[in-house]
Amino acid sequence: MEAQRFDMIVIGAGPGGYVAAIRGAQLGLKVAVVEREHLGGICLNWGCIPTKAMLRSAEILHYMHRAAEYGLKADGIGYDLDAVVKRSRGVAKQLNSGVGHLLKKNKVTVLMGQATLPAPGRVSVTTDKGEQTLEAPAIVLATGARARELPGLEADGDLVWTYKHALTPPRMPKKLLVIGSGAIGIEFASFYNTLGADVTVVEVMDRILPVEDAEISAFAKKAFEKQGMTIREQAMVKQLERGKGSVTAHIEQGGKTAKDTFDTVISAVGIVGNVEGLGLEALGVRIDRSHVVTDPLGRTGVEGLYAIGDVAGAPWLAHKASHEGVMVAELVAGGHPHAVDPKSIAGCTYCHPQVASVGLTEAQAIEQGYEIRVGRFPFIGNGKAIALGEQEGLVKTVFDAKTGALLGAHMVGAEVTELIQGYVVARQLETTEEDLMQTVFPHPTLSEMMHESVLDAWGRAIHF
Amino acid sequence: MEAQRFDMIVIGAGPGGYVAAIRGAQLGLKVAVVEREHLGGICLNWGCIPTKAMLRSAEILHYMHRAAEYGLKADGIGYDLDAVVKRSRGVAKQLNSGVGHLLKKNKVTVLMGQATLPAPGRVSVTTDKGEQTLEAPAIVLATGARARELPGLEADGDLVWTYKHALTPPRMPKKLLVIGSGAIGIEFASFYNTLGADVTVVEVMDRILPVEDAEISAFAKKAFEKQGMTIREQAMVKQLERGKGSVTAHIEQGGKTAKDTFDTVISAVGIVGNVEGLGLEALGVRIDRSHVVTDPLGRTGVEGLYAIGDVAGAPWLAHKASHEGVMVAELVAGGHPHAVDPKSIAGCTYCHPQVASVGLTEAQAIEQGYEIRVGRFPFIGNGKAIALGEQEGLVKTVFDAKTGALLGAHMVGAEVTELIQGYVVARQLETTEEDLMQTVFPHPTLSEMMHESVLDAWGRAIHF
Repeated sequence: MEAQRFDMIVIGAGPGGYVAAIRGAQLGLKVAVVEREHLGGICLNWGCIPTKAMLRSAEILHYMHRAAEYGLKADGIGYDLDAVVKRSRGVAKQLNSGVGHLLKKNKVTVLMGQATLPAPGRVSVTTDKGEQTLEAPAIVLATGARARELPGLEADGDLVWTYKHALTPPRMPKKLLVIGSGAIGIEFASFYNTLGADVTVVEVMDRILPVEDAEISAFAKKAFEKQGMTIREQAMVKQLERGKGSVTAHIEQGGKTAKDTFDTVISAVGIVGNVEGLGLEALGVRIDRSHVVTDPLGRTGVEGLYAIGDVAGAPWLAHKASHEGVMVAELVAGGHPHAVDPKSIAGCTYCHPQVASVGLTEAQAIEQGYEIRVGRFPFIGNGKAIALGEQEGLVKTVFDAKTGALLGAHMVGAEVTELIQGYVVARQLETTEEDLMQTVFPHPTLSEMMHESVLDAWGRAIHF
Repeated sequence: MEAQRFDMIVIGAGPGGYVAAIRGAQLGLKVAVVEREHLGGICLNWGCIPTKAMLRSAEILHYMHRAAEYGLKADGIGYDLDAVVKRSRGVAKQLNSGVGHLLKKNKVTVLMGQATLPAPGRVSVTTDKGEQTLEAPAIVLATGARARELPGLEADGDLVWTYKHALTPPRMPKKLLVIGSGAIGIEFASFYNTLGADVTVVEVMDRILPVEDAEISAFAKKAFEKQGMTIREQAMVKQLERGKGSVTAHIEQGGKTAKDTFDTVISAVGIVGNVEGLGLEALGVRIDRSHVVTDPLGRTGVEGLYAIGDVAGAPWLAHKASHEGVMVAELVAGGHPHAVDPKSIAGCTYCHPQVASVGLTEAQAIEQGYEIRVGRFPFIGNGKAIALGEQEGLVKTVFDAKTGALLGAHMVGAEVTELIQGYVVARQLETTEEDLMQTVFPHPTLSEMMHESVLDAWGRAIHF
């Protein structure tokens, strides 16, 4: 059978892949996408989106429990876990169909199947109708990543879950152990805690949310503990003894190992890139700890072969992947795109309270030799936060004392995942403290704290 | 009695006044503030803050009514209006005390009383302990504004309310007429509508929220009508016949006058500056339609006399006032502050759905001779909006087609009052479309629509 020819073949239809395909099509390229499982990838089907739907239900449940505080009344407040999950799956399905529609509208050829790369410029796809061969001068690897499995902590779907099981739970956990406190672990910990589970989080690093600024991690920890979670830092789950309906975890902390029993365990110990079974080794692609090595423009070093998104390494974020998708499509179409600057990519965690940040933490800035100025503003000093009943939070900014450049911004509290973009825009435009001080943030908003935090770095905050 | 001497005297302790005082004190000035009623002014005591507290209760009630949609359960959902109001008053009180604390901490002298200006550089204050005289080379008028009263539509506190009565209502309105659809009118319409009142809004202009972009006004109107409000545009209340427990309004629309009966009327037909009784005329201060005329730096033309905030004219927004407060304090202290650019001041309305905007509307941009590009992105195309259950909304951007400058941004939908700051930062930094396209807005957030709207203006949106 003759090979179908395209200008660009994208392998994987997660946020990096489908955005690359659409942008390529916008630029006049003939594009094919090969996806083995779901249009929209993990993000849309088993990650960002369905978790946000579930966390939204938890958020509203949280406010219902606080009804009296707002002058409101309700009895018999509760949840139907199946209905919460059903809504979440419906949201994922809706967006999954949306991606199919967008690809069709942009005349992208979609092939559902497993891809391999038998030779440069060539993709072989095993679909349920058999084998097809595609050819293109440009091939984009956007195969994403999956949950890391640690020996002994493997998920079984019953007692020990990955994020997939946690999104379609066979039951409501009563006593839940979450292993790992990155964004995924903490979001599930927060969700099940709000729904009433007794949650313990074990983190091997010295603090939860270990990529965040230490002060933000500490703030979040305190908030979670106040909500009844047990947080164990610098601790490690050495063994899981799986029994009938329960798991005994051997948790080492401070040189001692103690046992604790749970009915459910969520393993969220990081992710690994999907680099296997594609034939990458034979093509000479460089792989480093499960990730394809690329230059800042996504080039693998193999002529015409690009990699973007999670499979190309950290940060494992959908918005990094989709911007790389645009970048690579423009490159393939003969443009001169800018590389995506990892330091201007925000991270968001949708736990309660929310966490969001961009750029360097205070410790990183000091480590990199900057002389810094740090600003802080607490939610308790903000009128809108008090009016909302959201007094728990902090906005922290880190500046280069010499140039006034905004090195990093770190937030914990209500709606910070939506607020952080103002600092991202500021960083993109290489702002200094002076411009941010001149900016008139509207009143009454939480965003005024972003202004006050900048003012505070120069001893000029008004409301604190 | 000898006059007390200060470096700066501020008349009025609303957001403009107290911020001017604090900034002046930070800069080493000896400052006095004279306030006749409440520290924090209307904004904090009878405006921005207590309305947001009440709207927050309404928002949570709204979600409680939608519980089933989120997989949640509750019976007997309702509200206790007195408790809602009590919370709102408590929030205002807390912030009012906060302002007192901040002024004290900054060693600002606070005098509660009525000020007059008997001579240049001199302020006479009538307090409950008698008359005091203050002197300073710089006097800042920050006396604010109050509700406009139209003949025949005067509030009586029983049948016809101003915002003050609407914030401490003697009863829950059953059938409510709101006269005027600016931010104040629409926020109360939205609040009482959510609590179950049958609400009619009458607006004399051709559309509700008349300062907003026409497309946003139309979008909001449709949303309000879907919620059961009656909206009458290009209509005027000619007369109110006050009876026993009811008011018959004569409403003229399209040349015809019809009568309709309500149990409550809220009059929100604009505001007038507090310029009376201060002795301004004798000092030669120029007053134009109830507002003190100033140059962009707040100077009245009378040596040492400044005016800021509402009393100095539109836009009547607390954040404009407080930035002018900083500006004037820096000027008085010998600095060289920038004037506040009214085109970079966002407006926010906290109705449901929320409305926020900055810069020129599409019509204004065309009127000013710009060749424009317009971008739009609907909430229904955004993953987070769908996950939140907030598919109703629109983000519209207006660019100068020649330079790529962002002329205006206009939003309606969930959380837009918190989102708008990203565009405000962008305008402050004089961004072009190119910078905004390069900016990596985090996923999954509503703020991604701010990116897509920019892309759409150049035919490059991904998700629509």
